[in-house]
Amino acid sequence: MADQTLMDKLVSLAKRRGFVFQSSEVYGGLGSVWDYGPLGVELKRNVKESWWRAMVHAREDIEGLDAAILMHPKVWEASGHVSGFTDPLVDCRTCKARFRADKMAEARCPQKPSKAPGEHAACDLTEPRLFNLMFKTFMGPVEEQASVVYLRPETAQGIYVNYLNVLNATRQKIPFGIAQIGKAFRNEITPGNFIFRTREFEQMEMQFFVKPGTDEGWFEQWREQRMAWHHALGLSADRLRWHEHGPGELAHYAKAAYDIEYEFPFGWQEIEGVHNRTDFDLGRHQEHSGKKLEYFEQASGDRYLPYVVETSAGADRVALTVLVDAYREEEVEGEVRVVLGFDPAIAPIKAAILPLTKKDGLPEVAQGLYRDVRRRLPAFYDDGGAIGRRYRRQDEVGTPWCFTVDHDTLTDQTVTVRDRDTMAQERIAIDQVPQWLIDRLGMA
Amino acid sequence: MADQTLMDKLVSLAKRRGFVFQSSEVYGGLGSVWDYGPLGVELKRNVKESWWRAMVHAREDIEGLDAAILMHPKVWEASGHVSGFTDPLVDCRTCKARFRADKMAEARCPQKPSKAPGEHAACDLTEPRLFNLMFKTFMGPVEEQASVVYLRPETAQGIYVNYLNVLNATRQKIPFGIAQIGKAFRNEITPGNFIFRTREFEQMEMQFFVKPGTDEGWFEQWREQRMAWHHALGLSADRLRWHEHGPGELAHYAKAAYDIEYEFPFGWQEIEGVHNRTDFDLGRHQEHSGKKLEYFEQASGDRYLPYVVETSAGADRVALTVLVDAYREEEVEGEVRVVLGFDPAIAPIKAAILPLTKKDGLPEVAQGLYRDVRRRLPAFYDDGGAIGRRYRRQDEVGTPWCFTVDHDTLTDQTVTVRDRDTMAQERIAIDQVPQWLIDRLGMA
Repeated sequence: MADQTLMDKLVSLAKRRGFVFQSSEVYGGLGSVWDYGPLGVELKRNVKESWWRAMVHAREDIEGLDAAILMHPKVWEASGHVSGFTDPLVDCRTCKARFRADKMAEARCPQKPSKAPGEHAACDLTEPRLFNLMFKTFMGPVEEQASVVYLRPETAQGIYVNYLNVLNATRQKIPFGIAQIGKAFRNEITPGNFIFRTREFEQMEMQFFVKPGTDEGWFEQWREQRMAWHHALGLSADRLRWHEHGPGELAHYAKAAYDIEYEFPFGWQEIEGVHNRTDFDLGRHQEHSGKKLEYFEQASGDRYLPYVVETSAGADRVALTVLVDAYREEEVEGEVRVVLGFDPAIAPIKAAILPLTKKDGLPEVAQGLYRDVRRRLPAFYDDGGAIGRRYRRQDEVGTPWCFTVDHDTLTDQTVTVRDRDTMAQERIAIDQVPQWLIDRLGMA
Repeated sequence: MADQTLMDKLVSLAKRRGFVFQSSEVYGGLGSVWDYGPLGVELKRNVKESWWRAMVHAREDIEGLDAAILMHPKVWEASGHVSGFTDPLVDCRTCKARFRADKMAEARCPQKPSKAPGEHAACDLTEPRLFNLMFKTFMGPVEEQASVVYLRPETAQGIYVNYLNVLNATRQKIPFGIAQIGKAFRNEITPGNFIFRTREFEQMEMQFFVKPGTDEGWFEQWREQRMAWHHALGLSADRLRWHEHGPGELAHYAKAAYDIEYEFPFGWQEIEGVHNRTDFDLGRHQEHSGKKLEYFEQASGDRYLPYVVETSAGADRVALTVLVDAYREEEVEGEVRVVLGFDPAIAPIKAAILPLTKKDGLPEVAQGLYRDVRRRLPAFYDDGGAIGRRYRRQDEVGTPWCFTVDHDTLTDQTVTVRDRDTMAQERIAIDQVPQWLIDRLGMA
């Protein structure tokens, strides 16, 4: 299927079934801002929980943190964002459009969208001007320079300025990490591709503090770990690849940087970055705050500014990746079957309970099973329409298993389990259903 | 103990043990903005999870949502926030301080803080001016009126503008609810009391949509449910009370409003509100958007704007309530024992594993137990210092149970369980520890 068609279908399905809605839709929407609906919020929660478990709960050498979005403005002077977190913009005096000067080759003239991208021969462009990507606001009752604060453009700085607090409050020693999930904001000029590039987004970042000289080894370890996590989410291995930042791409603070890229319908794009940020950030904060941020290593007697290996993933991007990767269409008996083939661990609904008919006491038995299952797992009850149609409705939202209560259930106490991917059916005892699910989901 | 002393002790413990740090502390801090440290992030997660389970997962008639912080500015015109979400401010021409005109009786002169609150006899005050509490920012590259957007001052509006989307995407019928956890921002003039009143905060809100005429019954049901939730968190019943908004207090949109108040060291204060908001918000959005937001009730053929019963709690306030309520000091054998007596379900750490000594193979056995426990539950391993001191360290962060591996363990395969609250000790088989914990935590 054509790539744009796939994205259009996904956006449509996402709205229709309650994964993602456009923000403020009744007011015509707000550009590139999206809301997660009932299924989307559970999908994203599952992605974030998987990350938190892998990064915080499963590791003894990583601590969690939840820093505020608003931070002291000096943080962003020290980090270089106030002076350097900019895009060069040009205006067209003819069509009044605004473009990123470094992306002109991909830009289309809004008045002549049929023209090939980059064709701006007739355009009357201004010189590029630098535009800072940080959203600014004013804290306290007066709008003046002194009260300007920024919405953080990345969560990482909240970790740097707290690293000594965390060290002092815990029993950690270097090497150790701090992990955080939280919102960040960038006033992107050209957001787009659904929830891929949005002005408000959620990051899952981890900064790992190591002794200088050991950073390259840790960098390799973290590359391996992070790719393994994406594989464990069930993403197709052949649509994941590494992209190494070349000398021209490398940020000024980075010694090495690799992106994990996924092959979206709109091309290979970054979903996570692994960066060796050296002691750049801690050094800058030490300089700007005047506070010593060095670590004293008791075993060796060494005193040093730690190096930082950072893993930075976008929760919305991973959610989009999971949706794109899961989406497939199959022809079954002359009809198109749409399936979101989520890994069961991240599927918003784990099981659907369906009485074959609405009579003969089947709904009562099915309701009993439903209550039994949903005490432990997200489940859905559906008694409306033909059974085949109900299966399709569950396929479309990625429910791995459907349990059908039929007339045989009344005599032999078994139900049909129908598998989303194979569509194979088997009978199991009704009282075994919760345990059957728990076993398959690998819940202890 | 004096009330201010208690808050000071709590703030100090929160920093020292990693519950809450001041934001951007290395830069002198940012007023009334706080970061959650390793234990605080888990405590707050547990509070939010408890709410989400009770409001979304345990109920078939409530759907989850996660709307963005940035919304279309017309949302805030319709809701009345642009024109009416204001505080009256006065300036003092002498001392340059700024006060809320309606709180002058409690305000202290910053130049003469020793003076009684409200004493502003020598002050030269301006007339009150209205100050909007919404943080504003600019979306897109140009700062102009057309691009002003606000940081939402409440999560509720994200639910109102999405209510039809949620209805269409799910099988819900009225009465049903939509629940959401998310950040909101208010440019408070006088924030304070640690994480009680902050400019950036997290709300846990649920809007329940009902047929007009049934709203009073639902209002009573929700009052009951919400108070029961706070009790289930383990909060002291005698420090919780209802406060009914009198005619003078009632917001213009509300038909009835009750606050759940908790007795903090700084007085009785609201931690949650239950409001009958009638059809005010949906009516305003219908008017301002020009979109029909009515509900068609199939059974009766009625068409109406639903009434809304709202439950609105602050996640940070509940986290503070949990900390304050849990804090106690006891004299034990001539020493002060500090305990955070959290309900085990919300304690950040459920179990500590302690080898009695660092030799004779005890650490190896304890490490084995530790690994076994932490596969299922948040646990902590500590082999440093005298055992009594290690118990105290766990009491102070609210760990309900400590398991000590001693020399008897090597022969009889049992360990000592020590209870945080009673300090009673018993022996149980080492291989029974995970199940013992699971049983006590009521995990299925």
